Amino acid sequence: MLRNRLLDGVKRMKPILSGWQNLRSLSNGGNSKLTTIEVDDRSGIATLSMNLPPVNTLTMDLMHDLIDSINQIESNKSRGLILTSSNDKVFSAGLDLNELLNPEVERLRLFWTRFQDLWLALHLCGLPTAAAINGHSPAAGCVLATACEYRVMLPNLFIGIHATRFSFVISKWMMNSYQSVLPRRIVERALNQGKLFATQEALEVGLVDEVASSKEEAIAKCAEFIATFDKANPVARSLTKRMCREPDVRELLKDRLGDLKECVDYVMTPLFQEGLCAHLEGLKKRK
Amino acid sequence: MLRNRLLDGVKRMKPILSGWQNLRSLSNGGNSKLTTIEVDDRSGIATLSMNLPPVNTLTMDLMHDLIDSINQIESNKSRGLILTSSNDKVFSAGLDLNELLNPEVERLRLFWTRFQDLWLALHLCGLPTAAAINGHSPAAGCVLATACEYRVMLPNLFIGIHATRFSFVISKWMMNSYQSVLPRRIVERALNQGKLFATQEALEVGLVDEVASSKEEAIAKCAEFIATFDKANPVARSLTKRMCREPDVRELLKDRLGDLKECVDYVMTPLFQEGLCAHLEGLKKRK
Amino acid sequence: MLRNRLLDGVKRMKPILSGWQNLRSLSNGGNSKLTTIEVDDRSGIATLSMNLPPVNTLTMDLMHDLIDSINQIESNKSRGLILTSSNDKVFSAGLDLNELLNPEVERLRLFWTRFQDLWLALHLCGLPTAAAINGHSPAAGCVLATACEYRVMLPNLFIGIHATRFSFVISKWMMNSYQSVLPRRIVERALNQGKLFATQEALEVGLVDEVASSKEEAIAKCAEFIATFDKANPVARSLTKRMCREPDVRELLKDRLGDLKECVDYVMTPLFQEGLCAHLEGLKKRK
Repeated sequence: MLRNRLLDGVKRMKPILSGWQNLRSLSNGGNSKLTTIEVDDRSGIATLSMNLPPVNTLTMDLMHDLIDSINQIESNKSRGLILTSSNDKVFSAGLDLNELLNPEVERLRLFWTRFQDLWLALHLCGLPTAAAINGHSPAAGCVLATACEYRVMLPNLFIGIHATRFSFVISKWMMNSYQSVLPRRIVERALNQGKLFATQEALEVGLVDEVASSKEEAIAKCAEFIATFDKANPVARSLTKRMCREPDVRELLKDRLGDLKECVDYVMTPLFQEGLCAHLEGLKKRK
Repeated sequence: MLRNRLLDGVKRMKPILSGWQNLRSLSNGGNSKLTTIEVDDRSGIATLSMNLPPVNTLTMDLMHDLIDSINQIESNKSRGLILTSSNDKVFSAGLDLNELLNPEVERLRLFWTRFQDLWLALHLCGLPTAAAINGHSPAAGCVLATACEYRVMLPNLFIGIHATRFSFVISKWMMNSYQSVLPRRIVERALNQGKLFATQEALEVGLVDEVASSKEEAIAKCAEFIATFDKANPVARSLTKRMCREPDVRELLKDRLGDLKECVDYVMTPLFQEGLCAHLEGLKKRK
Repeated sequence: MLRNRLLDGVKRMKPILSGWQNLRSLSNGGNSKLTTIEVDDRSGIATLSMNLPPVNTLTMDLMHDLIDSINQIESNKSRGLILTSSNDKVFSAGLDLNELLNPEVERLRLFWTRFQDLWLALHLCGLPTAAAINGHSPAAGCVLATACEYRVMLPNLFIGIHATRFSFVISKWMMNSYQSVLPRRIVERALNQGKLFATQEALEVGLVDEVASSKEEAIAKCAEFIATFDKANPVARSLTKRMCREPDVRELLKDRLGDLKECVDYVMTPLFQEGLCAHLEGLKKRK
């Protein structure tokens, strides 16, 4: 039944994941994509680059284009997906915090739903996935990295979910994403601290799997990881991956509106608005 | 909903946790506290010492005073809580086993409920918590230590849940407490063996985080750990901690009477009574 | 209630586990056992050897005899159970794949139910269990090893669940068995890859606990492990083991028919039949 449920799940998710397409006109009227896809003809692996200057902030539009690109790569039966950034300083700076500051509720609901969609699309992607982390990767940038199956990072960067530092309380599925990679004890401590791991620390705890000295080397290592699945039947591999990840997504898929309501309710509290305000002012001063 | 449920949970727990206050006269008529609280004026951190000679056995009264002190420290908005012992040989020897020997059922029910209350109060404490383990820490002493977020231990001591050695079968929430710190494989083996870890072993498996050469150093290291939360918003930190720990307490909060009944039924079996009897006689002989 | 439920569970499982006995005549008319039991008079430990040439394939009959032997050892109150192979090249080659190739549905249902029974009998065995892995241990051979509490392996062998390599999607309880031993991140990757770990690799990730240079040494090390429970009360140990393993078996015990249906449905798909066919032809060529 699980295997059937999983197959059903794929079908059931399609309308959910395509729901945002109707909203596209609301947020992205233009034609210029904020992501690029390059497929290596020899290996058949697709490299998906985030390309929104200056720091790949996950705006409504960037998330739209990421979901679109993930779906496109998946339906083209690429051999694997490597997520990276065309910016060599920042992988992704995380969610667009301006969407959380004094938000209009309807807009916030769309924004959070799109972030749910993005995580589901990447976390449940049937292809082998890897992240070539060529820049800093805080907050939702880290969530995207942990949704992949492998992580290669360049030196002298930081990665981690530092939400408590700007008064945010993450959703349980974001914790699940972290906990699919790190031991429970480390997850709790890091989330509570809002810890950002330096590359070497991230390697030691297992948050990243390898360190590479250049973006090219990082992408090559990701491709080597994807090649480790060569002996596995792709459909059996994809169903096995979903079985492993089903506990992570179960609660969210069962009650997406619940997660949404919880997020909206919390974001609207004065506590959070004040904390976010102070955080954003701190960022401005540092510039 | 989780975040709301958590906030609700805090409110819901209050009557549960304050239930024992009505029982206070049953068990603690005097005024002398079995715990002391010292607040460091500079750091704002409260050190809570267990102070019941000879070995900080968790009696009805000591548990009462611990819960009382934890609540007091929490409501005083201290910056953190360090749990330690005023006895430099034993942190806590664990539950008062005399309460389990041929018990009167009503008394046993009060005793076990209080232990549930104590664990919930410490495990879900909103403040950063750490244990300065300056003496042996077997059985429920270990459960208290694992309910904290960090553990610093002095050399040449032992710590562990050795319940199977005196025929006891722990509750699932005690296992959850262990498993929030140690990997599953190590937990099962250690619980089955009734293993007591020497300080160095405990450090290697991650049951303690640091070793200190004196009680003062242990407390200083705990304070350093508590300072790692300085950049986190305290409310967001507290809600995040509860989210991480919610799976540990879910079953117990949903069915406290079930856990109580199970414990009482088991303690009343001849199997357990005979095993406990033999254990207590063994302890007497060793004296 | 858990402890009561566990005790009830033992009783409830008896009819389930003895269900196959009625089927014995279907599959094993002869008297020659495919397993042997040797009890060490000094230690009281039973060594259970799989003895079906050439490679201890888990046929209907071998699984029958294994379940029978496990039950016999358990009811004889042996001090522990060591699972090993009388073949010094292969511990067990895993399930009889011929039973999955163009199967008759009723036969397939019996076959899978028996595999469920075998795993439940070993995973929930009340005695201390250990595997002396003196030969290769792929697929269901690895599942049997992980159902034990300890694993000692000889050098230059391989172990792992490589199901995706022959297009099979394992059941969730097989994943649980793996995950009771290995960290989540390693489990997902290894299952997706269909990874076979060499002895040294298996030691490093914790899939095996020790390496021994001979079968005798492996059995001696297993016996040493079993002796670590000497100070634990056997009944309390057994109940504690079941409490630790209850989450692994919960879903299967709640819905055995669901797992069966899911397996049968998947095995009957052309995808799987084609993948299995190709795999079996590959094996023939290698001979």
